[in-house]
Amino acid sequence: MAIKGNLVVGQSGGPTVVINQSLVGVVEEALLHADIQGIYGSRNGLEGTMREDFIEMRKQSRSTLDDVAETPSASLGSCRFKPKEDDCRKIFEIFAKHNVRYFFYIGGNDSALSTGIIHNIAKEKNYELNVFHVPKTIDNDLLVTDHCPGYGSAAKYVAQAFMGNDLDNRALKGVKIDVCMGRNAGWLTAASALARTRADDGPHLIYFPERRYTLVQILEDIEKVYLANGRVSVAVSEGTPDLDGYVFLESDRIRAELKDLKMESIVGVMDASGRVEEESGGAKKDAFGHTQLSGTGALADFLAAATKIHMFRKTGKKIRCRADTLGYAQRSFAGVVSPSDALEARECGRAAVRAAVTTEHTSGSIILRRHSSTFGKYLCDCEVAPLEDVSGVNFPKGMKQYRPMDDKFIAVWGNDVTSEFIEWARPLLGPLPTKGLLEDYPIK
Amino acid sequence: MAIKGNLVVGQSGGPTVVINQSLVGVVEEALLHADIQGIYGSRNGLEGTMREDFIEMRKQSRSTLDDVAETPSASLGSCRFKPKEDDCRKIFEIFAKHNVRYFFYIGGNDSALSTGIIHNIAKEKNYELNVFHVPKTIDNDLLVTDHCPGYGSAAKYVAQAFMGNDLDNRALKGVKIDVCMGRNAGWLTAASALARTRADDGPHLIYFPERRYTLVQILEDIEKVYLANGRVSVAVSEGTPDLDGYVFLESDRIRAELKDLKMESIVGVMDASGRVEEESGGAKKDAFGHTQLSGTGALADFLAAATKIHMFRKTGKKIRCRADTLGYAQRSFAGVVSPSDALEARECGRAAVRAAVTTEHTSGSIILRRHSSTFGKYLCDCEVAPLEDVSGVNFPKGMKQYRPMDDKFIAVWGNDVTSEFIEWARPLLGPLPTKGLLEDYPIK
Repeated sequence: MAIKGNLVVGQSGGPTVVINQSLVGVVEEALLHADIQGIYGSRNGLEGTMREDFIEMRKQSRSTLDDVAETPSASLGSCRFKPKEDDCRKIFEIFAKHNVRYFFYIGGNDSALSTGIIHNIAKEKNYELNVFHVPKTIDNDLLVTDHCPGYGSAAKYVAQAFMGNDLDNRALKGVKIDVCMGRNAGWLTAASALARTRADDGPHLIYFPERRYTLVQILEDIEKVYLANGRVSVAVSEGTPDLDGYVFLESDRIRAELKDLKMESIVGVMDASGRVEEESGGAKKDAFGHTQLSGTGALADFLAAATKIHMFRKTGKKIRCRADTLGYAQRSFAGVVSPSDALEARECGRAAVRAAVTTEHTSGSIILRRHSSTFGKYLCDCEVAPLEDVSGVNFPKGMKQYRPMDDKFIAVWGNDVTSEFIEWARPLLGPLPTKGLLEDYPIK
Repeated sequence: MAIKGNLVVGQSGGPTVVINQSLVGVVEEALLHADIQGIYGSRNGLEGTMREDFIEMRKQSRSTLDDVAETPSASLGSCRFKPKEDDCRKIFEIFAKHNVRYFFYIGGNDSALSTGIIHNIAKEKNYELNVFHVPKTIDNDLLVTDHCPGYGSAAKYVAQAFMGNDLDNRALKGVKIDVCMGRNAGWLTAASALARTRADDGPHLIYFPERRYTLVQILEDIEKVYLANGRVSVAVSEGTPDLDGYVFLESDRIRAELKDLKMESIVGVMDASGRVEEESGGAKKDAFGHTQLSGTGALADFLAAATKIHMFRKTGKKIRCRADTLGYAQRSFAGVVSPSDALEARECGRAAVRAAVTTEHTSGSIILRRHSSTFGKYLCDCEVAPLEDVSGVNFPKGMKQYRPMDDKFIAVWGNDVTSEFIEWARPLLGPLPTKGLLEDYPIK
């Protein structure tokens, strides 16, 4: 609710190409409300707050803000810092010292969690602090919201990459595997299907973290499509379960076999040490206890090698097998932005400030609610959800604190999306590039 | 010269996002000349010609041609086929049988070579055949021409990827290494510098195939920039000499060391088998005798691991080190196209047909000649160069048959481009995305 005081805004977690839209949304809306005095940007999220490292946002010119809004990655700097209870108390003390009455944290579900802890401390101290979480993640795995700002643009990048991949694979036939980000949710990998326009367009196979596959299953799928179609484009989520285990357990065998077949120079095989902890057999965790999935080409290289061997065994031919790991470009490539994603990210920032200055809420997470209109036109607006519902902090133990893909969006056979997914996701990307293929008029 | 007969056009080698512009350029110019009768597209380059697999280009609608021109990758299909003398004789027979009097081959220097062999056979048989090579390669390593159609758009992709990378690296500081394509020439890797606008923008270090570095040198460069700047973005060409050897020789040591330091889970280490032939100690060759450099994440993963260890030894800290291999997106990502590249690719196709119907030439390679105007405005037009000069077939043994980066484009210290390179390359990309950073107004 409206109380005179200062505002702090911060950005957290992996960047997106529209996270600065949300930042500028917070700032430009804050400029409209007389109760909000200083507008402080906290550098590197709450890490900056801990060391009182703030910059003045009121002094930024309109043209700076306009340019920053269109610029990928977190302009205030980001962090991978998950404050403990003690850190949150220190952050609260700093807020109180600076008469901060408004705090906006743009990030994923860990940011919602940190925001909630700080809010509780303020309540306990009887200090009026309006705290709001502004959603952001390319993984699209936040609870409650229809989808997450950042997803549409990352999905557009992935769709355009697969469009190019598919055309490349048409021109030079073979097996092409691409590993996509998304942690334990398949949303971003599923976006690989969104540029398909013809029945034979790739990706022809999509593997999701939400389903389990054996390596043999995947290789047989690839073989089947290749034999029918003469080529295959495959999308694999970095979080697809068991695959890390295969990389760990089977790299030596694959390497030895490649050597036997004198194919060792054709594709690389990763040692598993990059992705799997030998001691525990489990994968490495990051600061938040999440499994670290990105950052190496291990899975892609392993799959290309395993496919190469499988296809040689089945066909007697050395089939062209290539794999790419799409990498950081998915979250920060400059110049591929979904217009609706940019707009919604901006609007989420503004909506958070509007919610904070009303009497209805002193905390919450901004969510996007989708409305279906009679004309099937896509329409979303912003609402406020309780922080606890978004952070999942009060969930019963064992319940997922993130949102996996809905069952209805994954084909029953597990290696493709459904048309419902296409319908749901397509409006989030905006226009895709032109695609034309020559008509087949053979000459006798 | 003008003679009544049919035309064959084909596409060869790794695709680009504008190779279809050249195809459509050939077709639309051919439609204007009465002597040209059938306009046949040869599927998968000369592979299709060998099996008489042609499609009728006259029947393609204007809108199909317009869409195809804007579509990445080779719409006729491509090939990695380098015809031998016997194959060329067979191709000539097929041309003669179909009364083909015009042949256009869109590709790299191997295509120029094949085209030249076919032309010589026709001359020897006293058969009038107009054969022209239309240049294409993202590597920009063709001789004679100022630059190659395909390069500008790939360079734009790389520049935008590094712009995003740099902003990502600003937000979450650490070491980020990106491996770029380009075979034995550094042109595409050099493009990583083209989105820099501020003194501290990355990439901060660029490693070229045209220079030699020891691994220690690279690691010390990275350390120096990191210590001065708090972060580093590094561009490495896949063709940088010796690095493959390091991957081969040092992977086991790096892996063991990571394990000792209990950092093995943080970044992956590739086994060298993906990139180096054990027997010869040399790298794997493709069908053209070229070293196969792309297609695995080995080099990137190795460099990230080696950097991690080096930085830990020097600073005692586990610094965030990540590496990506930019992959096929560099040559086929849909939606990132340089307008001047698209225009020039189209124009090269048209110029080839115009050259073929004049009396001046019966063979040649289209090149781009750059003119400097008094206003410093960028201006290129098409000329015809002898096929032998472009294919390098008559070069003395040992002389490079491709064009490495000019010395004046590489900084004397070997790990950056010069401002001359920026000036030379910048017009080839067209507009780059907006980039804005917040101004530093600290709060006391």
